[in-house]
Amino acid sequence: MALVVQKFGGSSVKDAEHVMNVADIVTSTYKNGNQVVVVVSAQGDTTDDLIDKAKEINPNASKREMDMLLSSGEQISASLLAMAIEKLGYPVVSLLGWQAGFLTTTTYGNARIKRVNPERIRKELDKKNIVIVTGFQGVNRYDDMTTLGRGGSDTSAVAIAAAMHADLCQIYTDVEGVYTADPRKIPGAKKLDEITYDEMLELATLGAQVLHNRSVEMAKKYHIELEVLSSLTRKPGTIVKEDIKVEKMLINGVAKDDNIARISVIGVPDKPGLAFKIFSKLSAKNINVDIILQSIGRNGTKDISFTVDKDKMDAAVELLNSYIEVIGATGLVTDSNVAKVSIVGAGMESHPGVAADMFEALFSANINIQMIATSEIKISVLIDKQEGARAVQAIHAKFFEMND
Amino acid sequence: MALVVQKFGGSSVKDAEHVMNVADIVTSTYKNGNQVVVVVSAQGDTTDDLIDKAKEINPNASKREMDMLLSSGEQISASLLAMAIEKLGYPVVSLLGWQAGFLTTTTYGNARIKRVNPERIRKELDKKNIVIVTGFQGVNRYDDMTTLGRGGSDTSAVAIAAAMHADLCQIYTDVEGVYTADPRKIPGAKKLDEITYDEMLELATLGAQVLHNRSVEMAKKYHIELEVLSSLTRKPGTIVKEDIKVEKMLINGVAKDDNIARISVIGVPDKPGLAFKIFSKLSAKNINVDIILQSIGRNGTKDISFTVDKDKMDAAVELLNSYIEVIGATGLVTDSNVAKVSIVGAGMESHPGVAADMFEALFSANINIQMIATSEIKISVLIDKQEGARAVQAIHAKFFEMND
Repeated sequence: MALVVQKFGGSSVKDAEHVMNVADIVTSTYKNGNQVVVVVSAQGDTTDDLIDKAKEINPNASKREMDMLLSSGEQISASLLAMAIEKLGYPVVSLLGWQAGFLTTTTYGNARIKRVNPERIRKELDKKNIVIVTGFQGVNRYDDMTTLGRGGSDTSAVAIAAAMHADLCQIYTDVEGVYTADPRKIPGAKKLDEITYDEMLELATLGAQVLHNRSVEMAKKYHIELEVLSSLTRKPGTIVKEDIKVEKMLINGVAKDDNIARISVIGVPDKPGLAFKIFSKLSAKNINVDIILQSIGRNGTKDISFTVDKDKMDAAVELLNSYIEVIGATGLVTDSNVAKVSIVGAGMESHPGVAADMFEALFSANINIQMIATSEIKISVLIDKQEGARAVQAIHAKFFEMND
Repeated sequence: MALVVQKFGGSSVKDAEHVMNVADIVTSTYKNGNQVVVVVSAQGDTTDDLIDKAKEINPNASKREMDMLLSSGEQISASLLAMAIEKLGYPVVSLLGWQAGFLTTTTYGNARIKRVNPERIRKELDKKNIVIVTGFQGVNRYDDMTTLGRGGSDTSAVAIAAAMHADLCQIYTDVEGVYTADPRKIPGAKKLDEITYDEMLELATLGAQVLHNRSVEMAKKYHIELEVLSSLTRKPGTIVKEDIKVEKMLINGVAKDDNIARISVIGVPDKPGLAFKIFSKLSAKNINVDIILQSIGRNGTKDISFTVDKDKMDAAVELLNSYIEVIGATGLVTDSNVAKVSIVGAGMESHPGVAADMFEALFSANINIQMIATSEIKISVLIDKQEGARAVQAIHAKFFEMND
């Protein structure tokens, strides 16, 4: 008898028919002799509908009250799923975040799970119940409702799996697993059978958002084996774990992120410590910097370029505008017409030719590279936004399609 | 500084505009130096919409899961009202039933409040917050969500008022108070300034459902002064209390209930104890019997007639059909084409002419009386359903309109 945690996203429970489908998956797992804990998100557009209701009344509502409002979404989907399972004749109980022992930090709207006390869940499993738990939510030390932020239901599922030492944590979604590229855009994209936590983390931060990255970090920390799979086709999905036994693939995927902007600080005096000061200013305002390029100093000055999330660009510019005089730089240039295209794979560590292959693919497609960043298992390039889709196609063809 | 509990029903918060109106009432009360605890129902048709969602999936869902589902309705309205009050610039916090200390029995779908622990509410009031509490819900000793049954938000409000020794409990609704008859049907209907708990209870059980009767019973028990008033016109409403200081009105209202049916057991042998046996059988099945008429024995048999709620008629007939042979009766006759019209007033105790006036009004209107029941402060007659509206008009004119 195994303990399986199954998480279903909003699109998997969007209406009565989908809820019945999920009930069928859950009860099949239960029938096979497993203990099942199910984590469920709010139905389809419920969360957006609730946000609209709030905005109509008060666009600047407190985050505490927003959490109170939004946490009703999972309450509805969890109880409906329980009713569907009752209809199929299986014992079931639905639990809210606070009932399921989810203790979080006090940061409304973006709380982190501090601890899961699975006592109540365990008691219900001992009574042979299937247990449905509302994802995305918990309770803080003031006994107030909190939400984990968008995508937090993945984290809820992994947290339960960790607290209960589950044998498997299945993340059901509307794609069949993790692909070498976005399958809706690259017809040749292939589903991966296995991927490591680190590769998955790189893919998640690169805009191939199959899993919320907090959930992958937590799975890595507590050694929880994840499976990403589709609630509709029910085929085996992609297993995410520490080490994959098959020979490491050279690269595991190509991802594109065009939700970024490039900022260049021009004419920075060539003195030590100025770059550090710029980035610590940004960091203090919670603005994360990604690819960084520093030009070679000339005439005693240099240019420092970096990328930030597009929605942080205005804040970064405002901050830097008041600071460039202090450090003696001459100006700021911004460009939000850029895309970051990256390849990820644990295998590239031992294959120095990977970067060259990637650049060659882009060169052959006549795509200009603006900036480059590399890590042990990732290479990212910044290019013109209009070239993004072509770049992904070219790189994907180079690494996956010609090797067939 | 007074402590005021204000309860707003679903129609008072049905959309953003109505929510803002309620926020205005609440903050006006707060501005006048009062501590304010607000109890709110689910918005407009939310509860019915949620029930529809459930029925689509499972028409026989457990009551536990229904309570889990339905309690989300007040969570939404409470947080939206809090956001509206934030918009007006006042400190506010919304609390769910369990956060507000509502402990109930375990009867899902129709729980009763066992205890209110107002510690958290008090703490929030001490912080100068306006406190919004979800009505209609609580938590039982298993830490499960429960609902109090329809109309239970009135009871939630009175329970808080009792637990906190509030100075006043205002029940805001879509009528301006308690009337001498249904103002939508009787143009001459008058609003009462004051009414006693007992009169209100009789009116509530008679179908003039301005207040849920559990809430009136609780208000009577704990001496909580209630005010029924409109959230739209904001005029002074009707005060419900123990003793009214003004001279007691002869009668306080006319009410009609046509959600009943008459059942007659024909040819019951004229032996002692048989009537008792019939009613104890019905009582054991939770079927409440109202007006009872027993014909005078003739030829050694008698007929026993009584009324039941219309939705209990089939159950009563099924039960009695299997029982009439046992007691030697000859048959059953049912009639659901009846209405009960009643007058209520603490003054009638000392005025024996009231019944005669009522019967005279009906006689003048040529309306036949089938059955009569009286108590210290109530007289009810059973008449043909088609005559119901005319009967109310005739009685209302007799007691109220001609006395002007």
